[in-house]
Amino acid sequence: MSGKLRVAMIGAGFMGAAHSQGWRVAPHFFDLPLEPQMQVIAGRTPGAVAKAARKWGWAESATDWREVVARDDIDLIDIVTPGDSHAEIALAALEAGKHVLCEKPLANSVEEAEAMAAAAVRAAAIGIRSMVGFTYRRVPAVTYARELIASGRIGTVRQVRAAYRQDWLRDENGPMTWRLEKERAGSGALGDIGAHAIDLAEFITGLRLDRVTGTLDTIVRERPLLGEGVGLSGTASHERGTVTVDDVAVFAGRFEPVDGYSPIGSFEATRFATGRKNALTIEVSGSRGAIAFDLERLNELELIDASGSELDQGFRRILVTEAQHPYLAPWWPAGHMLGYEHGFSHQVVDLVTAIAEGTDPHPSFAEGLHVQQVLAAVEESSDHEGRWTSVG
Amino acid sequence: MSGKLRVAMIGAGFMGAAHSQGWRVAPHFFDLPLEPQMQVIAGRTPGAVAKAARKWGWAESATDWREVVARDDIDLIDIVTPGDSHAEIALAALEAGKHVLCEKPLANSVEEAEAMAAAAVRAAAIGIRSMVGFTYRRVPAVTYARELIASGRIGTVRQVRAAYRQDWLRDENGPMTWRLEKERAGSGALGDIGAHAIDLAEFITGLRLDRVTGTLDTIVRERPLLGEGVGLSGTASHERGTVTVDDVAVFAGRFEPVDGYSPIGSFEATRFATGRKNALTIEVSGSRGAIAFDLERLNELELIDASGSELDQGFRRILVTEAQHPYLAPWWPAGHMLGYEHGFSHQVVDLVTAIAEGTDPHPSFAEGLHVQQVLAAVEESSDHEGRWTSVG
Amino acid sequence: MSGKLRVAMIGAGFMGAAHSQGWRVAPHFFDLPLEPQMQVIAGRTPGAVAKAARKWGWAESATDWREVVARDDIDLIDIVTPGDSHAEIALAALEAGKHVLCEKPLANSVEEAEAMAAAAVRAAAIGIRSMVGFTYRRVPAVTYARELIASGRIGTVRQVRAAYRQDWLRDENGPMTWRLEKERAGSGALGDIGAHAIDLAEFITGLRLDRVTGTLDTIVRERPLLGEGVGLSGTASHERGTVTVDDVAVFAGRFEPVDGYSPIGSFEATRFATGRKNALTIEVSGSRGAIAFDLERLNELELIDASGSELDQGFRRILVTEAQHPYLAPWWPAGHMLGYEHGFSHQVVDLVTAIAEGTDPHPSFAEGLHVQQVLAAVEESSDHEGRWTSVG
Amino acid sequence: MSGKLRVAMIGAGFMGAAHSQGWRVAPHFFDLPLEPQMQVIAGRTPGAVAKAARKWGWAESATDWREVVARDDIDLIDIVTPGDSHAEIALAALEAGKHVLCEKPLANSVEEAEAMAAAAVRAAAIGIRSMVGFTYRRVPAVTYARELIASGRIGTVRQVRAAYRQDWLRDENGPMTWRLEKERAGSGALGDIGAHAIDLAEFITGLRLDRVTGTLDTIVRERPLLGEGVGLSGTASHERGTVTVDDVAVFAGRFEPVDGYSPIGSFEATRFATGRKNALTIEVSGSRGAIAFDLERLNELELIDASGSELDQGFRRILVTEAQHPYLAPWWPAGHMLGYEHGFSHQVVDLVTAIAEGTDPHPSFAEGLHVQQVLAAVEESSDHEGRWTSVG
Repeated sequence: MSGKLRVAMIGAGFMGAAHSQGWRVAPHFFDLPLEPQMQVIAGRTPGAVAKAARKWGWAESATDWREVVARDDIDLIDIVTPGDSHAEIALAALEAGKHVLCEKPLANSVEEAEAMAAAAVRAAAIGIRSMVGFTYRRVPAVTYARELIASGRIGTVRQVRAAYRQDWLRDENGPMTWRLEKERAGSGALGDIGAHAIDLAEFITGLRLDRVTGTLDTIVRERPLLGEGVGLSGTASHERGTVTVDDVAVFAGRFEPVDGYSPIGSFEATRFATGRKNALTIEVSGSRGAIAFDLERLNELELIDASGSELDQGFRRILVTEAQHPYLAPWWPAGHMLGYEHGFSHQVVDLVTAIAEGTDPHPSFAEGLHVQQVLAAVEESSDHEGRWTSVG
Repeated sequence: MSGKLRVAMIGAGFMGAAHSQGWRVAPHFFDLPLEPQMQVIAGRTPGAVAKAARKWGWAESATDWREVVARDDIDLIDIVTPGDSHAEIALAALEAGKHVLCEKPLANSVEEAEAMAAAAVRAAAIGIRSMVGFTYRRVPAVTYARELIASGRIGTVRQVRAAYRQDWLRDENGPMTWRLEKERAGSGALGDIGAHAIDLAEFITGLRLDRVTGTLDTIVRERPLLGEGVGLSGTASHERGTVTVDDVAVFAGRFEPVDGYSPIGSFEATRFATGRKNALTIEVSGSRGAIAFDLERLNELELIDASGSELDQGFRRILVTEAQHPYLAPWWPAGHMLGYEHGFSHQVVDLVTAIAEGTDPHPSFAEGLHVQQVLAAVEESSDHEGRWTSVG
Repeated sequence: MSGKLRVAMIGAGFMGAAHSQGWRVAPHFFDLPLEPQMQVIAGRTPGAVAKAARKWGWAESATDWREVVARDDIDLIDIVTPGDSHAEIALAALEAGKHVLCEKPLANSVEEAEAMAAAAVRAAAIGIRSMVGFTYRRVPAVTYARELIASGRIGTVRQVRAAYRQDWLRDENGPMTWRLEKERAGSGALGDIGAHAIDLAEFITGLRLDRVTGTLDTIVRERPLLGEGVGLSGTASHERGTVTVDDVAVFAGRFEPVDGYSPIGSFEATRFATGRKNALTIEVSGSRGAIAFDLERLNELELIDASGSELDQGFRRILVTEAQHPYLAPWWPAGHMLGYEHGFSHQVVDLVTAIAEGTDPHPSFAEGLHVQQVLAAVEESSDHEGRWTSVG
Repeated sequence: MSGKLRVAMIGAGFMGAAHSQGWRVAPHFFDLPLEPQMQVIAGRTPGAVAKAARKWGWAESATDWREVVARDDIDLIDIVTPGDSHAEIALAALEAGKHVLCEKPLANSVEEAEAMAAAAVRAAAIGIRSMVGFTYRRVPAVTYARELIASGRIGTVRQVRAAYRQDWLRDENGPMTWRLEKERAGSGALGDIGAHAIDLAEFITGLRLDRVTGTLDTIVRERPLLGEGVGLSGTASHERGTVTVDDVAVFAGRFEPVDGYSPIGSFEATRFATGRKNALTIEVSGSRGAIAFDLERLNELELIDASGSELDQGFRRILVTEAQHPYLAPWWPAGHMLGYEHGFSHQVVDLVTAIAEGTDPHPSFAEGLHVQQVLAAVEESSDHEGRWTSVG
């Protein structure tokens, strides 16, 4: 590694642990063109952020993100705060000439995301890079699925079936958390996990959604207020609060036309799919094959090649753990599994490489904005009796 | 068996083979209160229907269904023709005082189905029974799923995810068949297989769909005209015809309210899901559990009981082959599989029992009409930009 | 069908129901060269056999099997009694010039089986055919597996892993049945279900076992005596009896050499595999691929083709329900499942065809004898500290 | 963390990367009582070990392991060399008063292992700890399986079915590597992967194997000599060498008696199971339930509870990713997967905790010796016609 890349992280919640692991581990497995330095982490609460710094391996901690953004000894700002502060921080960071990695969703509104995407374009013109953190693109099986489809392996894409299903709101007495408040979270199941399903569908197929029809709903509308809580669910008190975000979203979309036909996609995002813990699933049906993926089995990809005899066709379960599979070479021998966090190392690899090579990393803020526009179009459709609504 | 039940079948296509197997086999395994007599089969083409009679074990064949319906020595008319003739035959049969078993869909239009349902009610008043052939209700795993949900095993139903996915239209050079012509088939993927998904969702949950939003489409709009064809796909000629039915349908629905909440259901019917041969799948998520079923593994039911410790929860794969499971006692020892056709034997058991006991069998023509109304509402929604549309 | 084939069945237990269904159903789906006539069924108990005749569709019943074997109007004897009477009946039938279908195991001892195989050879010389009922060979997925291997699809066979696991003896208070008595049953798990695993392994690979090493054991040695019982398990009384057969067998074998190497096979037969109801599983590993099968999913075959790039290899799940798959054409459209009993129809097809064409059907009595010899060698090995023991 | 634990690693091959990741990552997620310092790594080749030090994050590198063992500033020696040097290094390290973590297998012979176990006992008396690296014990699903069985959840253990199947020797033209040479590797499939199956079976059940019967074989006996190779397979040259280790082992064992019965276990270790990449599978059948595990799906455990109604029993698929599952609390939310390497962090946690608390960690060298004795007994049985042979 010829140079350093001095990183500051803004935010000290759950996603911070995952991003930190990415920064820490990637250099030990991949040959990076720049050496990341885990310089400083910024958070609101002095004690908590100092503890996070120690635990996650950041050299320093800070409580004022503006000061961090202004520091000369920082090259990159990694934003892992809740979505309501993404825009402000990212705009300040780009303005200050820092590269930016911003956790998804890009922002809590299309307007914010537009400003961010515009700022990213201006920054790119002077060599400042920005990227939004849809890390599931970097699960090797997902990247490989995209490669298979891009190479024509399944023929023309005809249909997409995607869903992200969890069940952590199943218990109607589970407490309120910030993720259930519209002001903080921006959106509910749609924005939090539906966004992943959208990005995954677009990434794997290489196609963009043009228009959507959809319905949002809140299955459980009142929940006990959070007492002293930690983590995603927390513990409950006796008072009750109102859930102001959706907890289920069912929608459909049309992708841009391929060979004259606009493939149809069905989507679902829910936190009430009892027994499904993290089931981000996608199936893409093509004219000569299909692929299927489930994040709960993230080292596996199912593929059917329907171009030969019908007699021996069937979905095959590929363990995407061979050295030649995307991102795999530096890890373990074939058949040894990767986990959730490896995507964060891969994200670091791609981002650092793009910065070193002077290219624009993906997903760009423009791509993040597009996902935001899809989310907004789904909400608008839901507000208008489910009518088909154009994206953007 | 104390008496006879003299049966006539109208129609000699694929479904006729399945119904015949049901009539033939059921009495050898179940103790029926009436003994079915496979009296006569009626079809258009004299040679073909005579051959079908021999092959399938009907005592006689006939070419004029009206004469058959008029015969005194017939107690029950089993209608397995394409949907465009269901109404005429069923109405004539009920008028003639015959019990009627009518293959799904009940009819090709809501109007016809309304007339049939009304006639069925009049007939029931004088002891004449009628039933529509949604045989998948009688797959033991499906019946058992309904029992589990009715008993409260998964708590309150919150969400339904249902699909019927096949791939036999995947090849754009596959030929036209009557199932792709609106005039004969009435509907495409929606009416043919989507109807099964709707009925299954309503049967398993015990809930009716109130309103829907949806989209139909025809992915491949022109196909080679059928040369001399048999079976579902036939062989192709050089001229091309226009596909006038949908080949994919994506829709959502709201069920009638349970505990103040109207569960949402997502549905998909497609003949382009490459690699899925007969994947009628349903997952019902409840407040304390969930069930999942796939017709491609019809002896299995997945159940999760989420009422205990999180630690050992998971979808369990139940082989629904125990003697105490629905319909199973007369068949084979536990672990020995049933197939597609067994549902037709079970249908015979339930129909003959209802006739003997003087009760109304299910699914009734009214239930068949309701499915028809749901289908019509989906079509109407699709014609109106996907707007939510009331059923019936 | 040009002629009749007049069939008599000896035995009225569980296997009789399955064989009857085969005789009854096969002619309605397949074009047979001879028309089976279900003439007479013989059993010990007059009332029971008369009831079986009515239920299963035999024209007459009888209580003296010797009289039945002697009748001029019978062409074929189908033996479905417990194994201790197979030899006597089959020898008498062959002597009387009747074709014989004998349920597996061929006999309860090698000596009996040798006499039967010798008699079968003599009978074949004058056009009398005999066959042993390893019907799992005729599950389409199994037949197709054999075809794939015979065609070289998986390269040279290197290893076999086979097991037949059930759990119906799991409960130590489950009662004694005739299957647990050495005198009646001949053998326990080894002979009853291990025999299927052996035959399946040999059939699919086309290779014979040369020698074996193995261990038998009886996990639960005392059980309540059977009160008034029916079926496989019955109900219990207060006295206890001694289980005199094995209930678990673990063994290994070497097949005849292929390209200079004798593939190794591991086998297991158990009635204590809690949760496994009918798990006859086999995996055959070859130099260029592998197949895997599980009777609990009898319409599926797993295949891996390892001849191409490592990148997209994986076990594919083939639904063996296409019209071109073995035995499938006369049944239902692709994706519609067959069940346990269909193997009995296929057995009828192959047997009747062989009789009409004057060829020897398979599995022959010689093949049945060979399986018996393998079983005996496993027992002998178990009696001699597990030493490798030659077959036959 | 109150104190430091200064670690030296001996060996710089593949296992070194995994162990390094464990030492590096564990402290960032778990609260350890001592802080590991990655002090020095020793390897034969100066350039390679220096590179490994940089890559894996060790402060220094060295080429003479004896000097490292003698250093005062080292508290623990982590041995990841091939098995032929384990004994020498471990004995020297214990002699020098260092804690030892030794990768499995403990040694290449029982004699070496005995010396090591004896030395470990002597060392423990003065507070020096030793542990052998069967890390699969620390896959959360495996640890949880042991807990379930220990708590009686599946009743009395009746049978075990374990296998470790890979396919990396499938290609007969794959080259020789040190793992195929008896002198270096000590053993082949049996010692390398069979050892894992043995340890896993004993760990999960809590039972020890008393005696075994088995067969070893070498399916492909000659292979191209390794040209310039790296990793597990390397690249081939034109000369051929002789494979001197087994590449397949099939064996059975009896465990120590439980309630008067010695449960039987079947085992298989092979590198020719085409399509199985890392399939360490185990199924334990008990009187009231069973568990099943597959390392290729390492976040999942299958459990059947057979204590209630037969009607809704079935293997359930538990995602072992809940905070309350073993080792899980510090990692990600439920449904987020761990990978292969996490076991090495868990190993560090348990070892460091034991050192700090002054207790003996597991698996001890005595446990490693026992596995070695089982392996030796299998070899002896294989050399004596498969006869049952006592362990130890």
